[in-house]
Parts: sequence; C-alpha cells; structure tokens
Amino acid sequence: MRAYADAARTAIERCRWIASRTEHDGCITRTFLSPPMRDVHDHLRAWMEELGMSVRVDPAGNLRGTTGPGPAVIIGSHLDTVPDAGAFDGVLGVVLGISLVQLLAGDSPVDIEVIGFSEEEGVRFGVPFIGSRALVGDARSVLTCTDAAGVSVRAALQAYGLDPEQLDHAQLSPDALAFLEVHIEQGPVLGHLSAPLGVVESIAGQSRVDLTFTGHANHAGTTPMGSRRDALAAAAEWVGVVERLAIATPGLVATVGRLQASPNACNAINGRVTASLDVRHADDVQRLQAVSSLLAEARLVADRRGLDVSHTLQLDQAAVLMAPALTEALARAVAATGRQVHRMTSGAGHDAMIVARRLPSAMLFLRTPGGISHHPDELVLEDDVAAALEVGVHWLTHWERDRA
Amino acid sequence: MRAYADAARTAIERCRWIASRTEHDGCITRTFLSPPMRDVHDHLRAWMEELGMSVRVDPAGNLRGTTGPGPAVIIGSHLDTVPDAGAFDGVLGVVLGISLVQLLAGDSPVDIEVIGFSEEEGVRFGVPFIGSRALVGDARSVLTCTDAAGVSVRAALQAYGLDPEQLDHAQLSPDALAFLEVHIEQGPVLGHLSAPLGVVESIAGQSRVDLTFTGHANHAGTTPMGSRRDALAAAAEWVGVVERLAIATPGLVATVGRLQASPNACNAINGRVTASLDVRHADDVQRLQAVSSLLAEARLVADRRGLDVSHTLQLDQAAVLMAPALTEALARAVAATGRQVHRMTSGAGHDAMIVARRLPSAMLFLRTPGGISHHPDELVLEDDVAAALEVGVHWLTHWERDRA
Repeated sequence: MRAYADAARTAIERCRWIASRTEHDGCITRTFLSPPMRDVHDHLRAWMEELGMSVRVDPAGNLRGTTGPGPAVIIGSHLDTVPDAGAFDGVLGVVLGISLVQLLAGDSPVDIEVIGFSEEEGVRFGVPFIGSRALVGDARSVLTCTDAAGVSVRAALQAYGLDPEQLDHAQLSPDALAFLEVHIEQGPVLGHLSAPLGVVESIAGQSRVDLTFTGHANHAGTTPMGSRRDALAAAAEWVGVVERLAIATPGLVATVGRLQASPNACNAINGRVTASLDVRHADDVQRLQAVSSLLAEARLVADRRGLDVSHTLQLDQAAVLMAPALTEALARAVAATGRQVHRMTSGAGHDAMIVARRLPSAMLFLRTPGGISHHPDELVLEDDVAAALEVGVHWLTHWERDRA
Repeated sequence: MRAYADAARTAIERCRWIASRTEHDGCITRTFLSPPMRDVHDHLRAWMEELGMSVRVDPAGNLRGTTGPGPAVIIGSHLDTVPDAGAFDGVLGVVLGISLVQLLAGDSPVDIEVIGFSEEEGVRFGVPFIGSRALVGDARSVLTCTDAAGVSVRAALQAYGLDPEQLDHAQLSPDALAFLEVHIEQGPVLGHLSAPLGVVESIAGQSRVDLTFTGHANHAGTTPMGSRRDALAAAAEWVGVVERLAIATPGLVATVGRLQASPNACNAINGRVTASLDVRHADDVQRLQAVSSLLAEARLVADRRGLDVSHTLQLDQAAVLMAPALTEALARAVAATGRQVHRMTSGAGHDAMIVARRLPSAMLFLRTPGGISHHPDELVLEDDVAAALEVGVHWLTHWERDRA
C-alpha cells in the first residue's frame, strides 16, 4: 500500500511539474507541438529511459515508450491542454502509465507501451484527436488544416523536427493487445457517490447543431410588444424546451452553450440569434430522437412567433462501447482492491474512443473534486491516484487470465 | 396643396443629399462634429440665407437660423446619425423647419428659429443629447467626455473651430416661445393605423438595468442535468418572464437587448450571463413597478436554480409630458387639414424631451413605413411629408389664437 501512496504522490508532483511547462506564464496552456511540449517530452523520456524503456516521438508527435518488443498493452492519454487548463486532464493518464511500468518493475505478463498523445483537445487546429487518429491511420487528411497563424499541420510537424510523410509509422503495431486510458472524470458523478474510481462502459455519442432564429431587429422603445419578432425571446423560449427535455430523459445531457444575438444592443430588439446545441447520450437512438424533437420544437417556437429558424448539423458522433472483456476485468480489479465498482458512461470524448476503432479499449475514471476541469482549480486526490495505480497493477498482472 | 407636395418632394431630396454626406462610403454615418457635418451645415446655411434667415453655428455645434430678432417658435431636430443610418431620422425635422419658413414666406405671426442639433444619438462620446443639453445649459459637464480615440468634447469643439468656453451662448433666448420637433415615428404604430401623422402627448420614461446571473461553468458532456447551475438557462427563463409581463401590461415595452454568456462555447455550460433590461412606459409608476417586479422575478429564478443574480441600474429617466396647449393646437391643426388625429406616446427619447425642461414643447410624428429606422431602408412617404408641412403651416399661422 505504501508503494502506491508513494507512487501517487510522485505522479501528482510530475503532473504539477509538467503543468509548469506552458506557453503563457501564469496559466497552463500547452497546445499541439508547442515549445513547452518539447520540455515535457524530454522529461518523460528521461523518466522512461531510467526504467529501461525504449522511447521515440512518432511522426504525429506522440511520445511512445515501450518496455520490450513483444505484444503490448498500450496505456496512455494526451499531453496537450485547453487554454488555462488544469494539471491533470490527459497528463495524469500518461504519467500513471509510466508509474505502472515502474511499480510492476518487469513483473508484467505483457509488454507495456506508454503513449503521450500529441493532440486531443483540438485547440490549435480546431480538429481534436490528431494524436490518436494517427495511431489508427486516420490523420493524413488533417495535414492540410491550418492554425490561426496559417501554419499547416504538415508544416508544424516539420518545424518540430518530424516527417509528416512518415505518418503511417505512427500506426498501431499489428500485434498490439489492448488500450487502457486512465483519465479524470471531469464531472461530479463520482464525487457525489464518494467513489474514487469509475469503470467506463461507453463513451456517449454526441450531436452538435447550430441553430439560427431570424426575426426582425427593431427599436426597443418604439415597437409595441405585439409588433415584435424578437429572435432572442424565441431562442430563450427554446433554451427552456432543451433543458426540460434533457431533465425528463434519463442519461441525456443537452446544452445550449454558445449564444450570439444580433445586434445585441441594450436598446434594440434582436433580429437574429445563433445558438449551439450539444446533445449526448450513451444510446444513439435516444440521442438522435432528442435532437430531432428539439429541432421540431425550435420550428414550432419560430412559427408561432412569425420567425424563421434554420440549422446546421456540425457533428453526429456515435457512442463508442468499451471492450466488455476489458471493462469486466477492470471492474474485477476494482472489486479485488476492496473498492466500490461504479460503471458509467463518459460524457466527454477521449482518445480511447478513437483507438477503440482498431484495438479493444478500456477506460478508468478518477474522481474529479467538485467536477472542476478545464480550469486551474482541477484536482485529483492522492488516495484516488493510489487506488487507480493499485487497480492498474491488478489489471495488468492478471492479464493472461482476463484475456482467456 | 400643390405647394405642399412640391415642398415635400424638395424636402425628401434635401434629406437624400444630406445622407450622401457621410463618414463612410456606402452607408450613412455622420457623428457629432465629423467632417461631413460641415458640408451639411454649409448646405443648410445657404438654403436658410436664401430665405433671408440669419444663420450661425453655436458653441455646441448646433446650426441655428432665425427669421428675425423677435420672440421665436423654435423648430428643429438633430443632424447626427447612428452608424449605417437611414436618411430621415432627425434630419427630416430640420429640413421641414426650413421648408415651413419657405412656405410661410414671412406670413408667420411669430419669428421662427430653425435648429439642427449637433448631437442626439450619443454615438461618438457615448452621451446623447449634447446639442439640446447645451440649449438648456446642461452640457458643460460633457466637455471632458472622450471618444474612442481619446479626444474630448472640448477638443473636438475646438477642432471644429468652436469655442467651448462660450458654451453658455448656446442657451435658449429668454424670450423663446415654444419648441416643435417633427420626427419620424421609428415604429410601426402609425403604419398599422394607416395614419400619416401622430401627435405626441408624452415621451416614455425609461429604465435600463444590467443583470448578471452567476452559476457555475462546467463541461457540457460530463455534468448531469441535475448537477448544473446553468446561467444561460436561468437568463433564458427570465427573458420569458420579461416578455410575458410586458405583453400583459398595456403600454409597457420591455426588452432584453444585450446578452453576453460566458464562456459562451458550444461544449460548456455557461457560468455567467449578463443581460440588459430596457423598460419604458408613459406612466413612471407603472414603469418602476415593472422593473421592480422583473428584478424580483430574476431573484426567484436564480434562487430556485442555486444561482446568484445581481443588477446595476444604468438609467432611470422620468416620462416627459409635452405642453398640453401646444399638443392640443397640433391636434386641431391635424383635424383642420382633414386628417385623422392619433395621439401617442413616444417610446424613443428625442431632443424635445430635453428642451421641454425650459420651454413648452410639442412633437409631431410621421408614419415610418414598416417601422424601419436606424437602417438604410428607412423611408418617409411624400404624402405624409406634405401632410406634416400643411399641419405645421396651420399650427404656426394660428399661433396667437392658440397661445391665447
């Protein structure tokens, strides 16, 4: 037990050090191929090499260390961050992969490859999962995407000293066995249950739609209430519809996150409002029904008010099931260490969702105090990290039995 | 009748020419003391001097022409515009003042002073009514206000060739008789009534309040509906409350015009929303009751959702009654020309509201097709302009009888 506690403390210290490698002083911001990413690679490479691992940065900028040439279980997460991030989102899963190699000290029944994905958040190029997409051979189309400065992914890789023409060499080895991602929950569910760990059964499917309500901009003082076609009043009515449907549908979350009114002036009736709708559910049928119902309700609201409404589907991503055998093995490992097993759906997307296209994949969540993530106040509890390490060691050491 | 039709056509042509004097090609934008304002002054000065009027630009930048040294009825409106304006807001009232002098051709029982106010819209310095405030001796405090470029009103006046130290010379002559402002309605009411003209009985009082709902920003995918403190959902609920109260209260208009959500991202629950509330009514008691009720409702919405709400009162402007004797005389003039008399409240603020502090004031509205104003599509109908001129001539020629 003492070993897990010590390893947990060290892991948290490493995450904090990595957080100090940032593009902007005073906050944690480390995007794809940014200069501080190189410091992070150097730091993790040195640690892995101390453990006898072979380390490379693949052509997609993923940091990859292996304990040996045999069929490997891959453990990893991402090293990039959102702007003004916390210290643990992604990074913790990479650090814990190395911690597990250290704790097992050669006693693992399989080789282990630890991967620190180069890009998951989609900040720099507006495209998420570039690192894990390269592992499954789906990153080539991203090479021509450009960042705000007009630099392409191809040019950014070259500037980092990588060869985008060799992108295929980032692909998974054909004899890779499985993928495990350890990640903070980034939500309040485990905290409310007082559970340190969650076994992820699936990653929710997600729809994103942009809606535009078009009415008529007019003077707030001279236009009687009965003569208005107020796009903000219409959008506000619909925001209430979205919230009520989500509350009434178990497992559904639906959010209007972005709302832009025009002209957006205190003395004017808004003539146009654009609003984003984000809908997620573990069951794709329920998700698609909810989206369809909310679009129909938007039309009803608009018609009743004499407005137009239009929409653009931005994303329709199916739910991804984690590999049941691996998930069950994780649940057994949690139970074997004397802890409560909580099975859950991930509401957020993760690299495991991409890797699962090619490899049986599993995810273990750590409780996120207050559900606070993508924020400098993001935390993990040392006991929870120790628990995750103990579960990870159990899961790996029982590897052959579980695969049987 | 032919004379009024000809004068109306000429007036519209003059407004269109004035609209061509703009700070930005392709749209109508002419702010306080801007270079195109000088062209407008030159044009109107020449026209007034042709009619034998004495013309000056006062120290506040107001263009002022008088028919003689006797006690005068003042007729005017403003020459500045909002950005991307229409051709008639304000300008029409100045042009029609000169048209009336021309139509009366010396037959007026009183002298007439025509004023083109320098500043009403508040665009350049964020402070409206600078021109009319100078007439009532209330513009000195504005001298230190600065525009976006850091230029003060004082410096802007000097750069235009005016002497801000002489600001008191812009004040109304003590023997001024009355003020008449002819202005487009800027709303749909007269259009719906098929009425060319409206007699303004009062200018609505106005409250402006900024409200901030503070909840908790969080991840749209990982935060179950029951764990949310969504500031946008709260604000949206309250927008509905505002709309329903205004619809249920005769004569009340209430508008949430500006809404800013934070972080305003499609995958995040908004933690903070700031919204503006604009409430207007001819009856100050009803207006203040509505504001008070809407703030209490905001508190209820916030409390029920576990959010905070705070507010800042930005404006509390009492309703202004037009001088009843003048208003009655205007109504008689409308009736005498065979037209429907429609008495109404102005929902927008006007220079007459300021001048009324010192001088009996009246306002005549012209129908605004479609209620479209502050927009390049703003229009007036030639017949309506002719009607306004006929009413104005009647009102002025019956001056002594009405004052008795």
